[in-house]
Amino acid sequence: MTAKEPLILLTNDDGIHAEGLRYLRMAAEKLGQAWIVAPETEQSAVGHSITLYDPIKVHEMTKNGTFYGYGIGGTPADSVKLGLYSLLPRTPDLVISGINNGANLGINVLYSGTVSAATEAAILGVPSLAVSIAKKKDPPFEWVLPHVEILARWVLKNGLPRGVALNVNVPALPPEEVRGYKITRQGLARFRESFEQREDPRGNHYYWLSGEPTARETGEGIDVTAVTDGYVSVTPLFYDLTAHSHMKELACSLKNL
Amino acid sequence: MTAKEPLILLTNDDGIHAEGLRYLRMAAEKLGQAWIVAPETEQSAVGHSITLYDPIKVHEMTKNGTFYGYGIGGTPADSVKLGLYSLLPRTPDLVISGINNGANLGINVLYSGTVSAATEAAILGVPSLAVSIAKKKDPPFEWVLPHVEILARWVLKNGLPRGVALNVNVPALPPEEVRGYKITRQGLARFRESFEQREDPRGNHYYWLSGEPTARETGEGIDVTAVTDGYVSVTPLFYDLTAHSHMKELACSLKNL
Repeated sequence: MTAKEPLILLTNDDGIHAEGLRYLRMAAEKLGQAWIVAPETEQSAVGHSITLYDPIKVHEMTKNGTFYGYGIGGTPADSVKLGLYSLLPRTPDLVISGINNGANLGINVLYSGTVSAATEAAILGVPSLAVSIAKKKDPPFEWVLPHVEILARWVLKNGLPRGVALNVNVPALPPEEVRGYKITRQGLARFRESFEQREDPRGNHYYWLSGEPTARETGEGIDVTAVTDGYVSVTPLFYDLTAHSHMKELACSLKNL
Repeated sequence: MTAKEPLILLTNDDGIHAEGLRYLRMAAEKLGQAWIVAPETEQSAVGHSITLYDPIKVHEMTKNGTFYGYGIGGTPADSVKLGLYSLLPRTPDLVISGINNGANLGINVLYSGTVSAATEAAILGVPSLAVSIAKKKDPPFEWVLPHVEILARWVLKNGLPRGVALNVNVPALPPEEVRGYKITRQGLARFRESFEQREDPRGNHYYWLSGEPTARETGEGIDVTAVTDGYVSVTPLFYDLTAHSHMKELACSLKNL
């Protein structure tokens, strides 16, 4: 008898056909049984969306004649919910979301479908990782695999505090040039962004969001800085948006209402 | 000379045609100049989505022959960004999102488009309120108006700590029966939920999310409890998902990797 093989649910926000997910599966299959439940189409910047008012369609996808995973007509958070509640044979031991091409750092974390899948898993009580590489075009996913293996093995062995997800961002460096792992906090600076106004042939206005989606808060211990400095940034996330540090002050002022 | 009239940006996630927004506008017009920028269609449970890879169309909507507001082909967070950067004559003094029919309490806060609009405003440095009434069907919006006025006036006078948004949930009670305002924290319990599997006429599977979307963590100081007890719940929110309380412990364990 061998110990029970870990069950790992894999998802992403770039859709079931994405390269990053295929690489992620290679890493996960070294650790246990990998199950893919992922959106059928790209879902970038969907934030923590869930599908409440529409049914979610599920398709079994095959690759080279064998079952590859479930493609669903929903969001990354839907994928996690549906995987946990309905599609997997039992509750998974770990959820991994990614590998996203492009970092999910700073305020981006709030908009990221990759991260929201990991947060959803944490809400449902399953330890999770969101994994991204800090390169948008032609990302070298193979450089991410050793880090996924190391961190996933560690989480499978040690678990995570209840409700916590790890947001992992890997610099675009070969593994031997990475300086190590750093526990970081989410950077908070806003982006430099704006809208470009255009006019269609019929005179109607439309707008494109433009500008640099780069978080600007830098410094020791901040996610953006760790990656820039050549570390794998590991930010523990928890799904509580309460501004705890301001509660007393506000409670005091509200008394005068 | 009179003091400069406050500029108030109004938005929601139920779309520009929603009743709740019309009521919100009545309250806001007593306080200053109200500008509506809202999604053209319902955007419930969109979470903190933004539109990155598509252009956003903007339509000027009129009601009874006069300009009512901008309907946009985007999300609540898009509405706030576009309003602030492009559509309003100057940076608003306040952003109010709502009035949502149905509470946004507990974990719901993460999925809520109403709340994400307020959070987006806070990220961009503008004080904001997300306003919901704890009744989904036939909500008595007029009961919410005195609370919006009181809280909005208070924020316009005192401001809010940088980056903080207030998530306001009003019980479905006439104003004279409301017991007061309570500063609360976000409840953290997960929902009782599941999926119902069905089969379409061609034998394909699809799933409906079902179950009670009610947060179950209750107790003194928790948002859900305050509303149940007849108070207006006011939760200060901040856009930092870092699990600060677990950073040291994780940094220590990661050293062994």
